Amino acid sequence: MEEILDRAAHAAREWGTTRPDERAAALDAVADALDRETGELVALAEWECRLPGGRLRAEVGRTTFQLRSFAEYLRSGAVNGVVVDRADPEWPQGPRPELRRMLVPLGPVAVFGSTSYPFAFSVAGSDTASALAAGCPVVVKASHSYPDLADRTAEIVEEVLPKGVFALVHGQRRARQLVLDPRVKAVAFIGSARVGRELHHLAATRPEPIPFYGGFGSVNPVFVTKRAAQKRGREIARGFAEALAQQSGQLCTKPGLLVVPEAFADDVAAEVRALRAEPLLNKLVAKRYETGVEALAEFLDVLVEGGSGAGGHAPTLLRTTAAEILDGHDEALSECFGPVSVVATYRDSHELLELAAALPGQLTATVHGEDDDVLPELISELTGRAGRVVWNQWPNDIATTPAMHHGGPWPATTSPFHTSVGVRAVERFQRPVVFQGFPSHFLPEVLADER
Amino acid sequence: MEEILDRAAHAAREWGTTRPDERAAALDAVADALDRETGELVALAEWECRLPGGRLRAEVGRTTFQLRSFAEYLRSGAVNGVVVDRADPEWPQGPRPELRRMLVPLGPVAVFGSTSYPFAFSVAGSDTASALAAGCPVVVKASHSYPDLADRTAEIVEEVLPKGVFALVHGQRRARQLVLDPRVKAVAFIGSARVGRELHHLAATRPEPIPFYGGFGSVNPVFVTKRAAQKRGREIARGFAEALAQQSGQLCTKPGLLVVPEAFADDVAAEVRALRAEPLLNKLVAKRYETGVEALAEFLDVLVEGGSGAGGHAPTLLRTTAAEILDGHDEALSECFGPVSVVATYRDSHELLELAAALPGQLTATVHGEDDDVLPELISELTGRAGRVVWNQWPNDIATTPAMHHGGPWPATTSPFHTSVGVRAVERFQRPVVFQGFPSHFLPEVLADER
Repeated sequence: MEEILDRAAHAAREWGTTRPDERAAALDAVADALDRETGELVALAEWECRLPGGRLRAEVGRTTFQLRSFAEYLRSGAVNGVVVDRADPEWPQGPRPELRRMLVPLGPVAVFGSTSYPFAFSVAGSDTASALAAGCPVVVKASHSYPDLADRTAEIVEEVLPKGVFALVHGQRRARQLVLDPRVKAVAFIGSARVGRELHHLAATRPEPIPFYGGFGSVNPVFVTKRAAQKRGREIARGFAEALAQQSGQLCTKPGLLVVPEAFADDVAAEVRALRAEPLLNKLVAKRYETGVEALAEFLDVLVEGGSGAGGHAPTLLRTTAAEILDGHDEALSECFGPVSVVATYRDSHELLELAAALPGQLTATVHGEDDDVLPELISELTGRAGRVVWNQWPNDIATTPAMHHGGPWPATTSPFHTSVGVRAVERFQRPVVFQGFPSHFLPEVLADER
Repeated sequence: MEEILDRAAHAAREWGTTRPDERAAALDAVADALDRETGELVALAEWECRLPGGRLRAEVGRTTFQLRSFAEYLRSGAVNGVVVDRADPEWPQGPRPELRRMLVPLGPVAVFGSTSYPFAFSVAGSDTASALAAGCPVVVKASHSYPDLADRTAEIVEEVLPKGVFALVHGQRRARQLVLDPRVKAVAFIGSARVGRELHHLAATRPEPIPFYGGFGSVNPVFVTKRAAQKRGREIARGFAEALAQQSGQLCTKPGLLVVPEAFADDVAAEVRALRAEPLLNKLVAKRYETGVEALAEFLDVLVEGGSGAGGHAPTLLRTTAAEILDGHDEALSECFGPVSVVATYRDSHELLELAAALPGQLTATVHGEDDDVLPELISELTGRAGRVVWNQWPNDIATTPAMHHGGPWPATTSPFHTSVGVRAVERFQRPVVFQGFPSHFLPEVLADER
């Protein structure tokens, strides 16, 4: 570990001052290498989790697509955030010097691999790709769910990158060490809220506090207006059931709270009841899921009892009312990972808006509506509480496009400013520096080029 | 206090959804009102501190210039950070929805007024202007140094802005209350490192952690190469003395550490010895300064003993060596506010680079050089440690231009990503939200306009 961090710290200067197109070539090379080994990697993943092969193969595709998106972003130049002020002796606030601003990397980054995405948010996933794109060496702490897959993926990545720029470690003890080590300058965390909160506290209170990117739960509320329920009830109920079942609810964007008019809850239940049992990622996830559902069922009515068998877990649906949540029974506002969701019924627009205003920060908030009077205020309320607001669609899929923002106010994430998906994820690992009065031969190439 | 925060929380929605040009008009109106009352405000400031009238008048000018710069930025549209992705059913990663990203305000902001800048970084200063520009209501905690000036400035600002959008409070007890209150969503702090560190800890560990923008000291090191000392020694020594004396060293960008070849220290001392005594801001600042200098003098040699009299304090110069600092005697690396600086001599390039590598995060780092071999590595090292790197100039002045970055790695500031000077200071109080699939009549105007 000591040696790994020393190598990362040493590599930081050289990797951090490579030209963007050199880093782009390296990311492309990682993507190519992963593409070549897809067969072996998918086979390893199938051994370590219960995700189907097709889904895993598609995820490798997303992973290499992400790597190539960051490469493209690096080549576009936008990644450097260059702003140039010419010297101006006549500037109204006194003579103004020449200032050339650009973004530089923070230094070595610790990345925590995810359980739900063995590829796209793990060893060579979005966090690693964006930190590397920024010019930061990366040390990945492997998810305990994928020890062999992580090792093999790391081997492939290490072979392609310069020495010291990438390393993999295992074990929960290493997690604390990484977050506390003075050579580590930022942390990207995916994992349980319990561990995440502890590590976030360490990062924020260590002698030199560092940025910690993580999220501690989002129920991704979906609000259905009266007119939408009347006009498209069946379609919405079916869409919800599909969204809940997608990857057995093992997504950070799963709709975990459906807010509907009173009469509509039974239609939703009927659709959820028709869903099949599907296997969860692994035994630990299943165990945690069962405990989570049991805890919720102590406070909430069970509308559809999913149950489990050899085929896996069928989705569970619980029921409460907006009034109860507003009365302080807010268990329905805590995320439970897996195929479970809560239907909360409301009586009138006033209650609907009150519930929206009582929500903690969310990754997403969705509205299914028509031309209801409540909409402008509801949308405005949700805009104040979520990183993404969705209209008449479902929040599950996260497109890796330039406008995407996958983030949100606390506790959905620890930094409301940053996205963990899309090319702007690189900004989590960059800070501005401005050069004042330098002749171009002393400037980094990307600044010297700007004439 | 309770009522003030309630009003701010209520005002947040309406102020946060005003059109940018409406906020621009409000900022211009604040600037106009301050301009009209300059005479009275300067007279009040002269009563509460010992800054000369001309300097105070210029600072009002900077303050209204800043307000108008943010107004201009608001009108430019850049402030909204809009990015639009068209829907694309053929997107390689599966059908892509329409995504429209923009920046929205965080909510009510607590601003702490500064002692060194009674206008430009106080009640209507850069922090207030940037938070208002972002669409955030502001509650200012007045500096204890300017109770009457703060009240009068606040009166002027309040009269111009909508109800609840701006308020002023006094008293240290209120500081903690503000930082801990759940209605407050961000803090901009200027003040002592002791108080700042306590408040930063509160902000980072409260149930909903919030961004806290502050800085805990920067010595703004200046490195003089051998060739520069040989060729322009006299000029550099004189420039340094002037930079040290500017506003009696009461600037966050004062050069507090001058790193020079051994033979050069005496030339610097001669220039500093020639400086006149000037009054400090007020008695408390003078008292703290004297205590700070005494503490430094216990560890370091006194090269020029400034002393004090009826005219104020003459600059003090202390002396150490790079070797001693590297040996762990790093008192010279802590900021002391006021007209004091430390000269550290180095023997060779190796020592120079080692010292640069041992620096904590800085707001600025300056190099005076010629064509010395050490320069590329020195500049690269300093780029890794400072928010602004200055070549053959002095770091004191902070131009309020688009490229300016006034910030830096810990402990110089608490967030390496953000600037507190220049129009991008507004980004401290904005977070992205993306709207997925919305028809334009439900979108905020700035997004609906983007076709």
